Amino acid sequence: MPRILVINPNTTASMTAKIGAAARAAASPGTDIVAVNPADGPASIEGYVDEAYSVPGLLQEIRAGERQGVDAHIIACFDDTGLEAARSLAGAPVVAIGEAAFHMACLVAGRFSVVTTLSRSIPAIEHNLVKYGLAGRCARVRAAEVPVLALEDPASGAVELIAEEIEAARREDRAEAVVLGCAGMADLAARLSARHGLPVLDGVACAVRLTEGLVALGLRTSKLGGYASPLPKAYAGRYADEAGLG
Amino acid sequence: MPRILVINPNTTASMTAKIGAAARAAASPGTDIVAVNPADGPASIEGYVDEAYSVPGLLQEIRAGERQGVDAHIIACFDDTGLEAARSLAGAPVVAIGEAAFHMACLVAGRFSVVTTLSRSIPAIEHNLVKYGLAGRCARVRAAEVPVLALEDPASGAVELIAEEIEAARREDRAEAVVLGCAGMADLAARLSARHGLPVLDGVACAVRLTEGLVALGLRTSKLGGYASPLPKAYAGRYADEAGLG
Amino acid sequence: MPRILVINPNTTASMTAKIGAAARAAASPGTDIVAVNPADGPASIEGYVDEAYSVPGLLQEIRAGERQGVDAHIIACFDDTGLEAARSLAGAPVVAIGEAAFHMACLVAGRFSVVTTLSRSIPAIEHNLVKYGLAGRCARVRAAEVPVLALEDPASGAVELIAEEIEAARREDRAEAVVLGCAGMADLAARLSARHGLPVLDGVACAVRLTEGLVALGLRTSKLGGYASPLPKAYAGRYADEAGLG
Amino acid sequence: MPRILVINPNTTASMTAKIGAAARAAASPGTDIVAVNPADGPASIEGYVDEAYSVPGLLQEIRAGERQGVDAHIIACFDDTGLEAARSLAGAPVVAIGEAAFHMACLVAGRFSVVTTLSRSIPAIEHNLVKYGLAGRCARVRAAEVPVLALEDPASGAVELIAEEIEAARREDRAEAVVLGCAGMADLAARLSARHGLPVLDGVACAVRLTEGLVALGLRTSKLGGYASPLPKAYAGRYADEAGLG
Amino acid sequence: MPRILVINPNTTASMTAKIGAAARAAASPGTDIVAVNPADGPASIEGYVDEAYSVPGLLQEIRAGERQGVDAHIIACFDDTGLEAARSLAGAPVVAIGEAAFHMACLVAGRFSVVTTLSRSIPAIEHNLVKYGLAGRCARVRAAEVPVLALEDPASGAVELIAEEIEAARREDRAEAVVLGCAGMADLAARLSARHGLPVLDGVACAVRLTEGLVALGLRTSKLGGYASPLPKAYAGRYADEAGLG
Amino acid sequence: MPRILVINPNTTASMTAKIGAAARAAASPGTDIVAVNPADGPASIEGYVDEAYSVPGLLQEIRAGERQGVDAHIIACFDDTGLEAARSLAGAPVVAIGEAAFHMACLVAGRFSVVTTLSRSIPAIEHNLVKYGLAGRCARVRAAEVPVLALEDPASGAVELIAEEIEAARREDRAEAVVLGCAGMADLAARLSARHGLPVLDGVACAVRLTEGLVALGLRTSKLGGYASPLPKAYAGRYADEAGLG
Repeated sequence: MPRILVINPNTTASMTAKIGAAARAAASPGTDIVAVNPADGPASIEGYVDEAYSVPGLLQEIRAGERQGVDAHIIACFDDTGLEAARSLAGAPVVAIGEAAFHMACLVAGRFSVVTTLSRSIPAIEHNLVKYGLAGRCARVRAAEVPVLALEDPASGAVELIAEEIEAARREDRAEAVVLGCAGMADLAARLSARHGLPVLDGVACAVRLTEGLVALGLRTSKLGGYASPLPKAYAGRYADEAGLG
Repeated sequence: MPRILVINPNTTASMTAKIGAAARAAASPGTDIVAVNPADGPASIEGYVDEAYSVPGLLQEIRAGERQGVDAHIIACFDDTGLEAARSLAGAPVVAIGEAAFHMACLVAGRFSVVTTLSRSIPAIEHNLVKYGLAGRCARVRAAEVPVLALEDPASGAVELIAEEIEAARREDRAEAVVLGCAGMADLAARLSARHGLPVLDGVACAVRLTEGLVALGLRTSKLGGYASPLPKAYAGRYADEAGLG
Repeated sequence: MPRILVINPNTTASMTAKIGAAARAAASPGTDIVAVNPADGPASIEGYVDEAYSVPGLLQEIRAGERQGVDAHIIACFDDTGLEAARSLAGAPVVAIGEAAFHMACLVAGRFSVVTTLSRSIPAIEHNLVKYGLAGRCARVRAAEVPVLALEDPASGAVELIAEEIEAARREDRAEAVVLGCAGMADLAARLSARHGLPVLDGVACAVRLTEGLVALGLRTSKLGGYASPLPKAYAGRYADEAGLG
Repeated sequence: MPRILVINPNTTASMTAKIGAAARAAASPGTDIVAVNPADGPASIEGYVDEAYSVPGLLQEIRAGERQGVDAHIIACFDDTGLEAARSLAGAPVVAIGEAAFHMACLVAGRFSVVTTLSRSIPAIEHNLVKYGLAGRCARVRAAEVPVLALEDPASGAVELIAEEIEAARREDRAEAVVLGCAGMADLAARLSARHGLPVLDGVACAVRLTEGLVALGLRTSKLGGYASPLPKAYAGRYADEAGLG
Repeated sequence: MPRILVINPNTTASMTAKIGAAARAAASPGTDIVAVNPADGPASIEGYVDEAYSVPGLLQEIRAGERQGVDAHIIACFDDTGLEAARSLAGAPVVAIGEAAFHMACLVAGRFSVVTTLSRSIPAIEHNLVKYGLAGRCARVRAAEVPVLALEDPASGAVELIAEEIEAARREDRAEAVVLGCAGMADLAARLSARHGLPVLDGVACAVRLTEGLVALGLRTSKLGGYASPLPKAYAGRYADEAGLG
Repeated sequence: MPRILVINPNTTASMTAKIGAAARAAASPGTDIVAVNPADGPASIEGYVDEAYSVPGLLQEIRAGERQGVDAHIIACFDDTGLEAARSLAGAPVVAIGEAAFHMACLVAGRFSVVTTLSRSIPAIEHNLVKYGLAGRCARVRAAEVPVLALEDPASGAVELIAEEIEAARREDRAEAVVLGCAGMADLAARLSARHGLPVLDGVACAVRLTEGLVALGLRTSKLGGYASPLPKAYAGRYADEAGLG
């Protein structure tokens, strides 16, 4: 029975709960989903600065998961915040929800668009697509101009703004599928897929199935190259105990 | 309980059996794997001509699977022969083993090499990598110069030739993982991974887990764009009954 | 006096005749154009499934041409259906009309757009452009939403729909030339070029001149690498006699 | 008189001193160079985990510099650690030494190679080159297999190992220039350039001159798009005071 | 005190004067700017033919500058006319204003658009961006449809046409910065930057600061590879004395 | 009967004669080949400076050809010197021998290498391949380290040096064809092709057949975009009469 740690790297507990529920809904019967968030960091991740401050807390959760012997880790932020560091640190495989959704979308569509929250997040997502090699599969990254935490508020009208961008993606981008660009949208995929008549993918669900697959097949992060385990070394100041030598 | 049709597009039954066994070994407990091969076509697929002749038989198996209500189709040839046509034809999702291995390799390594059978197959695999957008993730496509059917013969020395290329990939390509480039190598991944100390991926196993995931998440091929269902039309001659209007 | 086999891979004889006439109009005085189509396959090629079923018939025509000693083969479908397989099979050079038009367009324009029939054909054409390396030269692949066989019917209004897309290509794509994206448009290039004031290229004419050039210069497909001649091997079922060992 | 804050994102003071000296040697007469390092974080940055833990401390230094009214910031780690977050946070322009060296190398050579410390750092540098658009200008990223802190020890033999890679870059990569891939190599550029007969670039010096230029021309980071200033929001835990609403 | 030769490759003296003034305004206190133009060639450079005829005169100015011992050369035409030849010929470093603006824009924005004079100049600028590797950083090259010499005439309304394109670049291209695409716009950058609220870069100013940096750091063009000094050889006709052996 | 002007842009008459003979050998029976070279310029083109000085003379030959009503122009230098300017100037189509060979090679091989004269010419050829979009089709540009004029001297041993590089291209580059990278090698293609067992292409012959094709099909350079005819304008100094307003 695989145990998968799902880490929401922001510190908003209601969002962690929603992500956990979405992950459980997507998981195989026997999979044990543990959803957590760090104690330190931003209430939501909207731009590069929030990303940067969320990573040490995320890595603490990775370390805790490793100590508890989890079988895999999921990073539940669509910017794939801290993915490379987490992969270096962990023995168990690590999947982030952005990459998960992109890879799964490639299996059901030749060309997809992304609908994310705020336009300030577009460049980070575009950089990830380039880094993963999948920029050519993505027609366009769109923003619904919905703050992350508005997704927690049913009265915010966020769903309609997202739906408008999905329609625009069909009409203007020649998109064959749409990837939802925020972990906070994890509960919307099925509904929007039915409404718009094309596959709408949520990265949390995709990541759950991909990590289950990696675990079942015994595939772990290669420790050759960039994901080599960190060298033991002195850390000064507040990270000395959590990340340093001893 | 999902039922997945695994189609070996060549006509060698012993290879179909081996692929089926590998698929079953990789599948979740409740998954029903049905392994078939077409009645018409080449005994092995080694180059573009063999590919071309295997596709109508492959599409017949896809049609048969659809009539029987399978939940997903796997194309078990590393060239991903006939993938686009199969995706257009099927209502259920279709995954090919080459793309499956490439996408899974991206989750455990920054950079991988492929080890395939004959060097005449290298350009087709390179074209696929470019088409999928993943050429930048692949350090090199290597050939062990092993004919496909030699993989069915334990005395052929094929495994040692493959192992030599894996070592070369580590040493010369800076590869962090290796993808095995033939369905006939499906039984070798775990052994070679242990021996060489890096992830070695087999596309059959990867495709089983990816299709299970697509089925569980209700994701089906988009019918917008290139994978639109074929238009009903007259077919002349021998395909009139299997592919034509009436 | 070179003899060039022009193969329309669909089974519509009137279209074969039109293609043959266009090829003859483009050929040098002494060139002998033989236009044929297979006995088996779809009446028109509109998407990946039709493509797949047209290839075995196409390869039979290639084989017949080789036996008759033709000097070159042309594949007269804009998707360049079966090109790699045909090139592997044939001793004589093979040119497909899509690639022919793209290469010639590069000699008269920095940047071109394509106007094809149906939008379902756009992804296949885009894949070819990427495979050939010429995607950066193509501003956009457009569809006039004209079924292939409507081009055979003067009353269909197809020409006006194509003309509208050419105007849009000039205005919106900054296209300096336009490539007509279907063999069935072979009779329209000169007229549309005069009407729109930019080079409009038809792939059939381009392919005739390119194959004449290859023949005159003694250039034949390299048999190193992906286009190596097929290995002799057993074929099961209906292709045993036409493609198998004996 | 511009004041430029040079931030060594690791916590090794001797390296900060060397970087500061190199920056001063490269600066215009009137420029005031202030070299600092954070109180918290790794003693050296060798891989993704060290990178991640260095960023909050780096951002504290950026904030302190902004309060003191510095005219520009330099990030003196060749991985360009935290560059996007720093650019979002700061009003003054921010330049990182990796990008600085790459852009300057493009002005004196068609093609350069990088010589960095450890091979585990190669993928991060390659990702940056792809993100910046300059991967095509870089022939190869090489590692001398010298730990960062060995550069602080004259007896380590590090210089000879670096010199060997420079020779290999000339001979094997067709490199026309070499970029030194670590802030700790800042004192070696002139000597190695003279010895090997090609431009050898140090990013610290390049960054000083580029930031002086940005300041003189009044160019500051655009706040449209990805580098928009962070939204005010609640931060939980240990970053609440330094990064949160207040 | 560095002496920098700024060469306007067209023969319009008023434009040379304006470029010289812009260069002086951008230069460090001690820098000596010498602005010249060739005696032979077009009054403005608008397209490939004008470019071609301006290069021998440009190279004569480079030669004259070398004889006088200038420390660096700037080519003040946004097409970067003759850059490679100048770099081969000169011992001192050479920077062209197009590349200068592109590299500096990369330090203050993730993504920029260019606003040039006439649409016939767009392809040359696009080619340069591809050659430099920076095409991915440029959202779009726009033309204000202003002839080069209209920029010399305050009554031409040129500034408003340029301002309209800057607004379109913000709105339609998601541009975070704008590069002015003509040396004749060198006096407009600060004003337009203030008006439009994003960095607007002029290549003349950027090139001055970049060449000052190269000089200060002792960086000169690599003579390995494509920029090797020309081989001594016989030249026939009118160039025999200026470019030939003796 | 088409008349084609073949311009050798250097001033070595013996090389012009050899090129003319190669062009005639490749031409259709009725084609009239006129081979010329400019009066002004370098004896051979080896690097960017020689290129630059050859272009005004080349353009004078283009102008002369236009006045005489030639049907097409060929630029017989493998660097494709002056191609864009010539295309802008001429009404008749213009083909350069580098691009000609690259496009034809794409029709007979998936992947080719180039063998040119001196390594200083490699970057210019690589830039052209990138500009044309065909860099992905070229495995490697190699230099035999043979000066251009050594090709005029049978005792120079040049052919053996070229043959060695062709063998290396087969063995090391996985090249399926080889393009000869200098007009002075035009007489060697058939011999080397037979000797090495793969297609060896000479650009002069390829360009003759391609221009014949363009002429026959009525295809001329598009005057939309970058190849627009030059605007009439004042030219100062020595080009006033040949290029200026008049």
